[in-house]
Amino acid sequence: MCGIVGLVAHEPANQLVYDALLLLQHRGQDSTGIATAEGSIFHSHKTRGQVREAFRTRDMRALLGNMGLGHVRYATKGAASNEQEAQPFYVNAPYGITLIHNGNLTNTRELTSELFHIDRRHLNTNSDTELLVNVLAHELQEQVNGHELDPEQVFAAVTRVHDRVQGSYAAIAMIAGHGLLAFRDPFGIRPLIMGRRPAENGSGRMEWIVASESLVLESAGYEIVRDIAPGEAVFIALDGEMVSKQCHAAPRLVPCSFEYVYLARPDSVMNGISVYDARLRLGNRLADTIAKYAPTGDIDVVMPIPDSSRPAASQVAQKLGIEYREGFYKNRYVGRTFIMPGQAERKRSVRQKLNAMGTEFKGKNILIVDDSIVRGTTSREIVEMARAAGANKVTFTSAAPPVRFPHVYGINMPTRQELIAHDRKIPEIAQVLGADHLIYQEVEDMRSAITEGSSVTDLEMSCFTGDYVTGDVSPEYLSWVEATQLS
Amino acid sequence: MCGIVGLVAHEPANQLVYDALLLLQHRGQDSTGIATAEGSIFHSHKTRGQVREAFRTRDMRALLGNMGLGHVRYATKGAASNEQEAQPFYVNAPYGITLIHNGNLTNTRELTSELFHIDRRHLNTNSDTELLVNVLAHELQEQVNGHELDPEQVFAAVTRVHDRVQGSYAAIAMIAGHGLLAFRDPFGIRPLIMGRRPAENGSGRMEWIVASESLVLESAGYEIVRDIAPGEAVFIALDGEMVSKQCHAAPRLVPCSFEYVYLARPDSVMNGISVYDARLRLGNRLADTIAKYAPTGDIDVVMPIPDSSRPAASQVAQKLGIEYREGFYKNRYVGRTFIMPGQAERKRSVRQKLNAMGTEFKGKNILIVDDSIVRGTTSREIVEMARAAGANKVTFTSAAPPVRFPHVYGINMPTRQELIAHDRKIPEIAQVLGADHLIYQEVEDMRSAITEGSSVTDLEMSCFTGDYVTGDVSPEYLSWVEATQLS
Amino acid sequence: MCGIVGLVAHEPANQLVYDALLLLQHRGQDSTGIATAEGSIFHSHKTRGQVREAFRTRDMRALLGNMGLGHVRYATKGAASNEQEAQPFYVNAPYGITLIHNGNLTNTRELTSELFHIDRRHLNTNSDTELLVNVLAHELQEQVNGHELDPEQVFAAVTRVHDRVQGSYAAIAMIAGHGLLAFRDPFGIRPLIMGRRPAENGSGRMEWIVASESLVLESAGYEIVRDIAPGEAVFIALDGEMVSKQCHAAPRLVPCSFEYVYLARPDSVMNGISVYDARLRLGNRLADTIAKYAPTGDIDVVMPIPDSSRPAASQVAQKLGIEYREGFYKNRYVGRTFIMPGQAERKRSVRQKLNAMGTEFKGKNILIVDDSIVRGTTSREIVEMARAAGANKVTFTSAAPPVRFPHVYGINMPTRQELIAHDRKIPEIAQVLGADHLIYQEVEDMRSAITEGSSVTDLEMSCFTGDYVTGDVSPEYLSWVEATQLS
Amino acid sequence: MCGIVGLVAHEPANQLVYDALLLLQHRGQDSTGIATAEGSIFHSHKTRGQVREAFRTRDMRALLGNMGLGHVRYATKGAASNEQEAQPFYVNAPYGITLIHNGNLTNTRELTSELFHIDRRHLNTNSDTELLVNVLAHELQEQVNGHELDPEQVFAAVTRVHDRVQGSYAAIAMIAGHGLLAFRDPFGIRPLIMGRRPAENGSGRMEWIVASESLVLESAGYEIVRDIAPGEAVFIALDGEMVSKQCHAAPRLVPCSFEYVYLARPDSVMNGISVYDARLRLGNRLADTIAKYAPTGDIDVVMPIPDSSRPAASQVAQKLGIEYREGFYKNRYVGRTFIMPGQAERKRSVRQKLNAMGTEFKGKNILIVDDSIVRGTTSREIVEMARAAGANKVTFTSAAPPVRFPHVYGINMPTRQELIAHDRKIPEIAQVLGADHLIYQEVEDMRSAITEGSSVTDLEMSCFTGDYVTGDVSPEYLSWVEATQLS
Repeated sequence: MCGIVGLVAHEPANQLVYDALLLLQHRGQDSTGIATAEGSIFHSHKTRGQVREAFRTRDMRALLGNMGLGHVRYATKGAASNEQEAQPFYVNAPYGITLIHNGNLTNTRELTSELFHIDRRHLNTNSDTELLVNVLAHELQEQVNGHELDPEQVFAAVTRVHDRVQGSYAAIAMIAGHGLLAFRDPFGIRPLIMGRRPAENGSGRMEWIVASESLVLESAGYEIVRDIAPGEAVFIALDGEMVSKQCHAAPRLVPCSFEYVYLARPDSVMNGISVYDARLRLGNRLADTIAKYAPTGDIDVVMPIPDSSRPAASQVAQKLGIEYREGFYKNRYVGRTFIMPGQAERKRSVRQKLNAMGTEFKGKNILIVDDSIVRGTTSREIVEMARAAGANKVTFTSAAPPVRFPHVYGINMPTRQELIAHDRKIPEIAQVLGADHLIYQEVEDMRSAITEGSSVTDLEMSCFTGDYVTGDVSPEYLSWVEATQLS
Repeated sequence: MCGIVGLVAHEPANQLVYDALLLLQHRGQDSTGIATAEGSIFHSHKTRGQVREAFRTRDMRALLGNMGLGHVRYATKGAASNEQEAQPFYVNAPYGITLIHNGNLTNTRELTSELFHIDRRHLNTNSDTELLVNVLAHELQEQVNGHELDPEQVFAAVTRVHDRVQGSYAAIAMIAGHGLLAFRDPFGIRPLIMGRRPAENGSGRMEWIVASESLVLESAGYEIVRDIAPGEAVFIALDGEMVSKQCHAAPRLVPCSFEYVYLARPDSVMNGISVYDARLRLGNRLADTIAKYAPTGDIDVVMPIPDSSRPAASQVAQKLGIEYREGFYKNRYVGRTFIMPGQAERKRSVRQKLNAMGTEFKGKNILIVDDSIVRGTTSREIVEMARAAGANKVTFTSAAPPVRFPHVYGINMPTRQELIAHDRKIPEIAQVLGADHLIYQEVEDMRSAITEGSSVTDLEMSCFTGDYVTGDVSPEYLSWVEATQLS
Repeated sequence: MCGIVGLVAHEPANQLVYDALLLLQHRGQDSTGIATAEGSIFHSHKTRGQVREAFRTRDMRALLGNMGLGHVRYATKGAASNEQEAQPFYVNAPYGITLIHNGNLTNTRELTSELFHIDRRHLNTNSDTELLVNVLAHELQEQVNGHELDPEQVFAAVTRVHDRVQGSYAAIAMIAGHGLLAFRDPFGIRPLIMGRRPAENGSGRMEWIVASESLVLESAGYEIVRDIAPGEAVFIALDGEMVSKQCHAAPRLVPCSFEYVYLARPDSVMNGISVYDARLRLGNRLADTIAKYAPTGDIDVVMPIPDSSRPAASQVAQKLGIEYREGFYKNRYVGRTFIMPGQAERKRSVRQKLNAMGTEFKGKNILIVDDSIVRGTTSREIVEMARAAGANKVTFTSAAPPVRFPHVYGINMPTRQELIAHDRKIPEIAQVLGADHLIYQEVEDMRSAITEGSSVTDLEMSCFTGDYVTGDVSPEYLSWVEATQLS
Repeated sequence: MCGIVGLVAHEPANQLVYDALLLLQHRGQDSTGIATAEGSIFHSHKTRGQVREAFRTRDMRALLGNMGLGHVRYATKGAASNEQEAQPFYVNAPYGITLIHNGNLTNTRELTSELFHIDRRHLNTNSDTELLVNVLAHELQEQVNGHELDPEQVFAAVTRVHDRVQGSYAAIAMIAGHGLLAFRDPFGIRPLIMGRRPAENGSGRMEWIVASESLVLESAGYEIVRDIAPGEAVFIALDGEMVSKQCHAAPRLVPCSFEYVYLARPDSVMNGISVYDARLRLGNRLADTIAKYAPTGDIDVVMPIPDSSRPAASQVAQKLGIEYREGFYKNRYVGRTFIMPGQAERKRSVRQKLNAMGTEFKGKNILIVDDSIVRGTTSREIVEMARAAGANKVTFTSAAPPVRFPHVYGINMPTRQELIAHDRKIPEIAQVLGADHLIYQEVEDMRSAITEGSSVTDLEMSCFTGDYVTGDVSPEYLSWVEATQLS
């Protein structure tokens, strides 16, 4: 999970990128990086931690120039401390390219081998971003023999990237001395949206921004132009001239369903769908399913797990005519906190992050609404907390269907064995969770709830269905990914 | 605004205090400090910032010992960077005393003069905590001539402190080699609650904790014993022996209403009143007032300003039978963030912290519920945001009455001139805010909503009424406070 | 070993104290601290490390005021990382006193007990500086009942300090709102010198400085007034008014010989004796002894161990008519450096700090001059290096006599068992060092070489002779000190 | 001025490189960097400051692998804070190359243009190291089409580098997955020496090291193999296999004279010449010149300016039969120290770094020996200090001839206008310095003193003579360099 932003302005880019990253922080808190371009010179700073801890005044002062891009990252397991994998990545030939991306490439083994043996390019990390920038660099080098760089060459290189690279990628790159390039994989799995505003300097020129979520554009006063289309590339020259081109023969929009379920901010509109509205609709559908399968007559209150299931829970409560109560309270200030060395193994109570108010639970039958259930560990602890706080009967519900397969397109997920719904029937899961009842959203309900009223017709839902849209995800690949994660 | 915790354990106190402070972080984010006692040796670390930034592993390792206390602080205006005023404070005679407090003393000028001229004690800061620890130290010194320290002497000293000191104070102190002392001012204005649990080491001894809010106790598995009574002092020896005594002749419980309105966490129970339930009841009363004064027929949605007004807003929606929508989204990750030097004066949009989702506002009549209106600056910006997002009519409501007077008991407030309700009638305020309608909670409704069903009969509500419970707050004092703040 | 400075200026003291500490850095590199007084408010910053690493701009900016003092410290064994023992120390009653000292108290056990049981004062560390400031504070409190502080009271308190405290101490204290106090123990064991200069602000007032070494005064353009006398106290009011008084009935100047042997900078003049000249004279006397006892006919070159034995070695070469060569080179940049955890036990070659140039040793007979031999470890490695570099015969000489007893007056020394000369005859020591010949300075030669031409008649030379000038150093005390150091 | 080291070991390289850099610290204190290779993965850390401040434990832990290189740098004027120019530099194609160098390229303008317009390589800084690594990378890429890398291809690429690049360069590079490359420009202007030792792991393999100075090899127990020859390249494979080749048709050894005058450590042997012995011989020749031109009869003492002129001064004293005294003392602990912002313009007395002992100067005629005179600023202050300390007559002498031309081969020098000897006759210089007499070494004496007894026949002495050995240094170039430095 990552958040990305890139912009071409007519004023210093550092503060603009920084402000945008603060708004994308929910997409990743493990590392962050900003690069800017001052003429053909890049400046960059990347480090561990959240945005507001990562950039000191001296770091910001050094990020000169009017073009810039930034990244926030949720590291994969075990790699949290690997600063070398923080983005952006840079290659110095041809031209100098600095790139960030959100997504996950699925043919990394083939690409690594090609780059090493054929392109003689060195990869210094295991980051697929380093792969992507090297493939792009190599293809761009193939285009540029002898004449000056023009956007058509850039688009030709992106077309080649689409040919060579598989998986999900929403990418933003700066080409030194030339401009900003943004492109999205042919399925548009990960989001990318483009906006513009007139420069404040009165030059009559436009400033452009490309980012993971629309709220970044709204908050900074950009007019939303459109989502970058699947397969499309956009090139914005330093002077603010924008050109775009479809770089794939058969693009098809299949956005990731998890963005709507819990990743994106509710105030974003993504591929034309309001995330908040999608969550309300998920609540409505879930209410119907609950009404069908669960005895709701004796339920006293409906409770969300803050923050992402709140809209769904409030709809469930309203539709079922049951009182809505926020009996769980989430501590805003807990993040990566200190644990005395040697006490790490001592289980840190989930109560550090979530507290159940005794007065709201005592003697009541509770219906809990969560956005999804992945490992089930937290869900089980939540049920325990509810019981410890005095709850009588606990019905647990999930606004998403059972997660049964790995997610390979850029959302961090455990291995199949760790998924509570892998190889388990729903009553078995209920038993593991300790819930009296357990209701999941139906797959088709999720699809229609999210896409209803929009022009989106399909969703990437492989972790619920096992159907991987890119077609190259074999059981052998999944085993390799899991083995790599575990090592 | 501050949060405090102190504990006597039979295992290292550092992690316990740290975990507790994380749960009190909402009471202050400007500075924090921990002190522990290892036998008769104190260790302490205090610095700027939030808990999880302030304590590195090496700092924590140095905090040895089984007794400890900790503090989080919201600094007064202009003093945010004054590390010297971070708590705890230490004096080395008699015995060695380390103290923290939550509250505000109102006779600081008299105390400063007495300490300097009569007690020959040096005050190195303007902190009233330094005053409090010196008064306590002086009074304790008067008690201890010749024989060993016993709790009775400590209680005698606290009695003298009550005589000399005016204002609000919930205080915790460690006396080197002896134990932990906690006491609360005779009106119990600021909260302080006590819990215990058996030691894990199988010794059969008790571990004790004293903290600002009950959720700290619940989260760490302590049994709640009781709120410390107004005027009461509690002394817990290093071995876990607890004794307590009422140290004031005429104590009277008059807790601060602002704790319930917005300061405390909703999952706390304070003076026997659930904060969450109090906020629900505030919503109910507010709904009645709205129904009485405002035309609600054409209102499409009720919206809270997250997070503290959510319970009230949800009750307003339900009671008025209007749809509830969370059209404002709050960014969790914005705190003290970087602003490029020289751009500080450039107004940072409130949108950095709060975003209005266009889809929820367009063409609708909105009823906004906030917890209170102090300066009115944010409220005005919220109204503007709602209109910019396409709202038609905007009704603004406050779950608390108009704030017309300064708060002098430990909650940071602007001067009278900066209070939007100072010397203004409600329609004038509505005009300043740009709202079509403005409805405030009634004072008596607030009192009864908060105290309903509890044994509390009175509340400290001076900023709404101008009646200061300690009796020593003159107009001259208020002018002096305001002048000091402004300088 | 410590270096101290205090000053009363009519401009900001922070830079002045900082610059002085840089010049005293050779007296201690483990921790450092500065305190300043702004009116009656103290500001202070103390931390580990050398001066230029320890104070960042924000630390310096916070050190406001025109009076200040500073300290550099060489920590005793095992205590290097104990930041809590960094000086200065502060007590807040009476008046507020901040104190630093150079030296070592020898009746710490008695003082600790008195302070705890009688004065009810809390000691939070094992630092004898904390003892000293508490004794001074207590005695000052006894003096000041009822009337304003005047210098006579301060001097009376210092007189009492001389009565209660034993050992060596050159101390500087600030009394909040009043001025700067400097005093030296009745034997003047550790150095302290006073200077003055007219204020640059044209006020006609004097600025005063007190420091461990005269070069600090010279470098900053102060006129040297005099060494503070043994037992004397000097008080400089904030306005620059200086008064002084002899506070001991029977003072006697017995300065520490080690200052001249290796601790002080050669460009200092201490108790009227030029350190550089003393070292030249030590060389002359040593040359005579060498000529008497060693066969010098076949020696090819005389070599110093840089830096402190250079003057002596150059005199030895000249007097014996042997060529002088600097065959050992010292690395200026090695300090506390990184050692990969887990490799700490792997012996770090002394060659990191000292290198022997092959070209200067090959086939030659070498006479090495060192300032003194304590543990002998380094001397043995030096002999090995000389041999490895090709030296033929190695004669090792020491400009000081054999160190046979602990030093208890503020110079860090190992226990008796670790002293190479403890219980060993000189030929045995030569054998341990691997030297062909070993010549030590004679005790009486050292005394006369250092004091020659000055009014100083006696020297503190207990580590050579076993005679401790303060009279209270018993074998039981030495054993206790050693046991404490080892734990 | 820079120091470099590279090594191929059979144990972790991080500590080995770190220890070596400590010994090269005198060659640059502004920034430092280490890179290591763990298989084909590079790890690197570079930052401002000295070695022992720059690398924390966590930085060192991340530097994995058995091959490594390191750099210390003395930044050019104005660039001290430019962290981006810290070495090493990395390019990722072909193979991945990490490079450091000591020296200065003189055709940077041509190279920059070629790389940008022809090779399409991006330069992100003004560092000539980035140029060098890109030229090497480009030439290596030309060699490697289709087959695996072998040393011959590497040597062919170095041959091309010699063709394209002008100036001085002693360079060390790691080629990912292959080995370590070291090469020296065809005049061998900057030093580079190679050593080896058997691996400690008992494998029977050799470990190799390449460094700026021989003392690094000696201190770590490496056998000195030889200086890398001018034009030669050495390639050491990961398994310790070493091959070398002369890569230039007409190499000629013309080492920089300044290494011997003051840059190198005296205990180094460089191009077969002992630096210490060279300095002694410079003293001998200078004594002859002094005797010829100056009235020495009334001179009382000869004094060095510590540390580098000490050997020369001691020979001058001995040859002229005048007493030798170290009247100036240098503070070891002053580096980049804090200056209160706003006081920067206030002249910091040179006394902070150097102190003149009054007792050694009073009423005497002094002959001062310095290693060289560049700007003359310090020399003038030294003369002033001597007079202020009471010196009667001051004769100033320089062991090097007048510096009249810029140094363009890697030693930082001011512009011609700032050189005190530029366009001035010696008596005029004496007058500016305030010296009674001024004697410089003769150019031919310097040449013969340094080279005497060695196989070196020529020296790079352009700053004394204006003859630039690389032949491409035109007046236009010098003006461009000066203009660039000043901007």
